[in-house]
Amino acid sequence: MLNRVRSAVAHLVSSGGAPPPRPKSPDQPNATSAVPAAPSEAPKSPPAKAGGGSVAPAKTAEARASFSRPTFLQLSPGGLRRADDHAGRAVQSPPDTGRRLPWSTGYAEVINAGKSRHNEDQACCEVVYVEGRRSVTGAPKEPSPGQGLRFYYWGLFDGHAGGGAAEMASRLLHRHIREQLKDLVEILQDPSPPPLCLPSTPGTPGSSDPSHLVAPQSCWSSQKEVTHESLVVGAIENAFQLMDEQMARERRGHQVEGGCCALVVVYLLGKVYVANAGDSRAIIVRNGEIIPMSQEFTPETERQRLQLLGFLKPELLGGEFTHLEFPRRVQPKELGQRMLYRDQNMTGWAYKKIELEDLRFPLVCGEGKKARVMATIGVTRGLGDHNLKVCSSSLPIKPFLSCFPEVRVYDLTQYEHCPDDVLVLGTDGLWDVTSDCEVAATVDRVLSTYEPNDPSRYTALAQALVLGARGTPRDRGWRLPNNKLGSGDDISVFIIPLGGPGSYS
Amino acid sequence: MLNRVRSAVAHLVSSGGAPPPRPKSPDQPNATSAVPAAPSEAPKSPPAKAGGGSVAPAKTAEARASFSRPTFLQLSPGGLRRADDHAGRAVQSPPDTGRRLPWSTGYAEVINAGKSRHNEDQACCEVVYVEGRRSVTGAPKEPSPGQGLRFYYWGLFDGHAGGGAAEMASRLLHRHIREQLKDLVEILQDPSPPPLCLPSTPGTPGSSDPSHLVAPQSCWSSQKEVTHESLVVGAIENAFQLMDEQMARERRGHQVEGGCCALVVVYLLGKVYVANAGDSRAIIVRNGEIIPMSQEFTPETERQRLQLLGFLKPELLGGEFTHLEFPRRVQPKELGQRMLYRDQNMTGWAYKKIELEDLRFPLVCGEGKKARVMATIGVTRGLGDHNLKVCSSSLPIKPFLSCFPEVRVYDLTQYEHCPDDVLVLGTDGLWDVTSDCEVAATVDRVLSTYEPNDPSRYTALAQALVLGARGTPRDRGWRLPNNKLGSGDDISVFIIPLGGPGSYS
Repeated sequence: MLNRVRSAVAHLVSSGGAPPPRPKSPDQPNATSAVPAAPSEAPKSPPAKAGGGSVAPAKTAEARASFSRPTFLQLSPGGLRRADDHAGRAVQSPPDTGRRLPWSTGYAEVINAGKSRHNEDQACCEVVYVEGRRSVTGAPKEPSPGQGLRFYYWGLFDGHAGGGAAEMASRLLHRHIREQLKDLVEILQDPSPPPLCLPSTPGTPGSSDPSHLVAPQSCWSSQKEVTHESLVVGAIENAFQLMDEQMARERRGHQVEGGCCALVVVYLLGKVYVANAGDSRAIIVRNGEIIPMSQEFTPETERQRLQLLGFLKPELLGGEFTHLEFPRRVQPKELGQRMLYRDQNMTGWAYKKIELEDLRFPLVCGEGKKARVMATIGVTRGLGDHNLKVCSSSLPIKPFLSCFPEVRVYDLTQYEHCPDDVLVLGTDGLWDVTSDCEVAATVDRVLSTYEPNDPSRYTALAQALVLGARGTPRDRGWRLPNNKLGSGDDISVFIIPLGGPGSYS
Repeated sequence: MLNRVRSAVAHLVSSGGAPPPRPKSPDQPNATSAVPAAPSEAPKSPPAKAGGGSVAPAKTAEARASFSRPTFLQLSPGGLRRADDHAGRAVQSPPDTGRRLPWSTGYAEVINAGKSRHNEDQACCEVVYVEGRRSVTGAPKEPSPGQGLRFYYWGLFDGHAGGGAAEMASRLLHRHIREQLKDLVEILQDPSPPPLCLPSTPGTPGSSDPSHLVAPQSCWSSQKEVTHESLVVGAIENAFQLMDEQMARERRGHQVEGGCCALVVVYLLGKVYVANAGDSRAIIVRNGEIIPMSQEFTPETERQRLQLLGFLKPELLGGEFTHLEFPRRVQPKELGQRMLYRDQNMTGWAYKKIELEDLRFPLVCGEGKKARVMATIGVTRGLGDHNLKVCSSSLPIKPFLSCFPEVRVYDLTQYEHCPDDVLVLGTDGLWDVTSDCEVAATVDRVLSTYEPNDPSRYTALAQALVLGARGTPRDRGWRLPNNKLGSGDDISVFIIPLGGPGSYS
């Protein structure tokens, strides 16, 4: 997320030192009542280094020790050092030997060109088993593995202002999703429509009687039908919120610094759920056709939401900002002149007479990768950022950021997929320099050079995409074949085959 | 807007009598500083009669006298009576003799089957000349007709809870648009990008010096480029707001009762602007292909905006409503049980434990045509409704309703249109019983029976669409050929030819 949180990082790192030591929480994979707290090894981000240059900053042994990469990369200490090297920017993938990722998923990543000390992207790929918490009918129920649910899970987390939030989300978000799904294990496997109302206390006498389920008749003339699919969407949405709340609770003492975008895929019962909060992107490439599976959430795409919040809650602007947008900064000498503006209701522009309060800094300003909320942050959704303040101010930015993802659903059973049909997930390091069409062309080019049943083809594709976005060192920078600058940002890519050798039956 | 404002109407009409007489404002077609106020003949809506039946309510001579239809229909007193007859429901169009509508536009309408005393739809079709108010460079300027702008204008206004708002909007909204465009006459005709800042006082000494225009350089590193198109969009958006504010000012003494959806088309300098606030709809049918030019704004499509407002401003809910949505009404005996819900951030559903405040009535409830805000109104954007209160309560609904349209732009110059390519505008009376595809099929069927250069073909098409949605009286109701109920609502349709005999050069 190059250039996006420069000033925020500068502010944050100037306000605190290294995190105090804290007892490590035990990992609790089977905990049912709560998701484990963050361990102490969350790294502290050093001052950011802006720009896409090739010079690697000096690293201390201490910093290196707190650096972590996804466990599925199975990095040796030497491998970890190479993955952390800004000068070489070696592309990392899971080893060809050893256990493959589920579904023969391909993965590749590369560290940034020096904008932050470590790679602030994190990734997770898991098969998660969900044990039902209770019977729908309220009957007490013994854990019964055969009746649980399994979901496949992929997550990309693009950190900013430190790596802590991304690291925590990569360890815990899927467990929050599992927690949310526990109530739904029976309901999702029952073909009848979900019950609108459930009894309050499982296991109370008589509650196994299905008549305890409230009948559909009611004081309304009608009732909405709720689909199984929308329950999974709701579970993922609430999991994001609970993950964010956990970060808020544990942020004190800088246990969780910074924030992160989150792009998550859940495969459950024949459907692919793509949840996105931030500026990562997912597309499906199917028979050469591109199907967008996410949208980016930035100050530009969310301008009206941000302006509406500033308008309805002016106290959040602290007298320092105006909720109006102007095409450039208004200058004091322009008082009384008329300038173009947009408010929360407008998509077009109109002229207004400049008044004193229009001289305040605009809540939303800038364009493209330089667009900012409160002159500080360039993404508007994600997890964390609870400590984030406006530069040189105590004004919190978090109220304007949303932790809620947009969730899109793709039904895998509605189409006969071939081995070349893939879901591509990438952080903005990929998409800043690569169009959807270029990705589709690379998918075609790389996969056609491998046998359809060669499981290594998806990793090769992920590597090709990361290499293509990174470029090669030349003329004092990382450059693409067309001599434009490659991405100096962290780049991470998942390739999920939709009909390939990975079996998802 | 059948069934949508039943209770609202019942409440409103029970709260007041006939409007007090008020001096008629002179029409001011050339006024430059303000849009004329509403005249006194705004009709007062009688109690609504629900359902799509065929029985016409009794009418008094008084009520008939205050009834108005678009002037371009050129209705005689006898014609006006026939247009106002719920039993016959004769389809009305401009006469074949006499002056045609601009662009050979086709139009047809029919009154409802008895749900309100008069037809609460209104329509307007005008060519509007905009005289520049000032020079961009600030130089004093004599009115110079040659340098003005001409725009073509079509408007459909679907009234509810009375006909006053729709009638007022049909007379005045295009004048508000003209006022907004006056500042832009020179700018829109200058191919260079619009100036971001204008001098404050036209005609002051020295202000003809172009150096008074603020140069693009500034304290920001960049500035947004604003297009001519977005200025027109902004002008239309602000015109809607000013129209709504005028209704608010003049609502006292019941000068303007009720509210209305507004669907407006502006053709200016090669582009078609379609602005929609409410549940009317516009589609282009081009070479058989359907291009949607609007979306509907209803409690369902705007659920999250409404819930967010209720969440951020709970005082607007008056302790009577909850911003949460439930799939059906929660019953007191269900306290402590868990029910499905959605909040302002969710698109999916999840279970929550029912608490006391969840027993309040939901801000948004119901489905499809029965969806309601605060149990009262079924559309969420439009003009007027400043007197609208929640049934049996003093809680105002207006803060939840938005007067801002969504504006879509279609560039007429980007495609060679044939005489069968049309823009279809219809109130919900058409779309409730007719799909986009059925409309496209009717376009093909009707236009192919006329010579391409026969200007009456578009009126014939509008009539066919209205007749097809109305049906014929049979089995105690208006029925379609498939024996389903036709629309008992007011139905109004414009057909705007995009490449037909109407010249728009």
